Amino acid sequence: MSGWVVVAGLGPGDEALVTPEVRAALEQATDIVGYIPYIARIPERDGLTLHASDNRVELDRAAHALQMAQDGKRVVVVSSGDPGVFAMASALFEALEAGPAQWRALDIRVLPGITAMLAAAARAGAPLGHDFCAINLSDNLKPWALIEKRLRLAAEADFAMAFYNPRSKSRPEGFARALDVLREACADARPVLFARAVTTPQEELRIVPLTEALPEMADMRTVVIVGSSLTRVIDTPRGPILYTPRSA
Amino acid sequence: MSGWVVVAGLGPGDEALVTPEVRAALEQATDIVGYIPYIARIPERDGLTLHASDNRVELDRAAHALQMAQDGKRVVVVSSGDPGVFAMASALFEALEAGPAQWRALDIRVLPGITAMLAAAARAGAPLGHDFCAINLSDNLKPWALIEKRLRLAAEADFAMAFYNPRSKSRPEGFARALDVLREACADARPVLFARAVTTPQEELRIVPLTEALPEMADMRTVVIVGSSLTRVIDTPRGPILYTPRSA
Repeated sequence: MSGWVVVAGLGPGDEALVTPEVRAALEQATDIVGYIPYIARIPERDGLTLHASDNRVELDRAAHALQMAQDGKRVVVVSSGDPGVFAMASALFEALEAGPAQWRALDIRVLPGITAMLAAAARAGAPLGHDFCAINLSDNLKPWALIEKRLRLAAEADFAMAFYNPRSKSRPEGFARALDVLREACADARPVLFARAVTTPQEELRIVPLTEALPEMADMRTVVIVGSSLTRVIDTPRGPILYTPRSA
Repeated sequence: MSGWVVVAGLGPGDEALVTPEVRAALEQATDIVGYIPYIARIPERDGLTLHASDNRVELDRAAHALQMAQDGKRVVVVSSGDPGVFAMASALFEALEAGPAQWRALDIRVLPGITAMLAAAARAGAPLGHDFCAINLSDNLKPWALIEKRLRLAAEADFAMAFYNPRSKSRPEGFARALDVLREACADARPVLFARAVTTPQEELRIVPLTEALPEMADMRTVVIVGSSLTRVIDTPRGPILYTPRSA
């Protein structure tokens, strides 16, 4: 049997957002590896072994997946959202590069998914409809000074901004500092979207002016979108619609 | 009958990348509107009217969709990729804001899709695995000076960058200027991905150093990803893998 590794995106939570391509890979797998809550989304079946692991062990998980494929298994590494956006695909290639040369001959594919910022944007309207950036606010893997520099430059470029991992467990005060930097750099009351657990039964959406955004509006399951200077809210009887026009 | 409007993303081309959520909306629609090549992807059936329109009439198309919903139709506006990324969702909300007040009571939903940059990134590896930005290089809707400013600030922030519409018909020379700006601002030979018609039978992927990137490597169906200073290529027997590590 010839092994392979697929790194697959499960989307933000709703099973109706899992692509048929990903569904087919899950059905062909002999082994699925991933962070505990993502593995919990996979139905058990005969011939399939589920390998759930904790957060912060991405490189071990990636090496495990590659070695199982080397041993002939059909392995799916599951990420939430899109595996290429602050998720397992980069970790897998880091492990590949650091690992034994024979791994490089493996059949490895990345299957995209609906990433959290795009699901959140869709639920709120179209805040990412013009130029934007995506920043991982976790400082596990990069210094705070670099995050702050990127926030200032992104504001100067007038990008809409999507923030992943706004409040990491290890440094929850980082997000308060990020909001302070943004208030100073943007100097207006542009709208901010706090989108928690999008597309799940726990979904909560909240739109506030940047001047009123508070760190505790975000938790580990929240993606935050800060508008550009052009981002607007349309008030409707069904609630506010947040969007950025196409023209600058 | 109660009308509604759904703005749905068909993904980059492969039908296996259309989410079940979007598929269900297409099955419930009475009317589908969109740009000619996207409408060509929709199978005809009894009870469904297809309304294909040309490029550059996004606002007319959006208003048409809203008016049909007002008249009780179940309308899907189709975009390729994700409707919220340089596509129809913002145009729809522009039309909504400019239109009759009664439209604001309509049931309007945006359904996300796999956007071109994420499909291209997945095919090549994981070049967007660290902080990145997405810029529409078409200058139909914004001045060139703003594009150039954003390119310079994005390089200074050391974002990976995804470019949509690199070569617009109206100003094909813009992309040559963008590459010149990037070569000056980045001052290295970081890898650049030209991803044409991703996930379709016409797919072509090409990775070249920034110093060797040529404008004619892109056309209207190409998304371009320029790495950050950390983006790397792993050579494998199956071809190059392009990725950006998670750590900075």
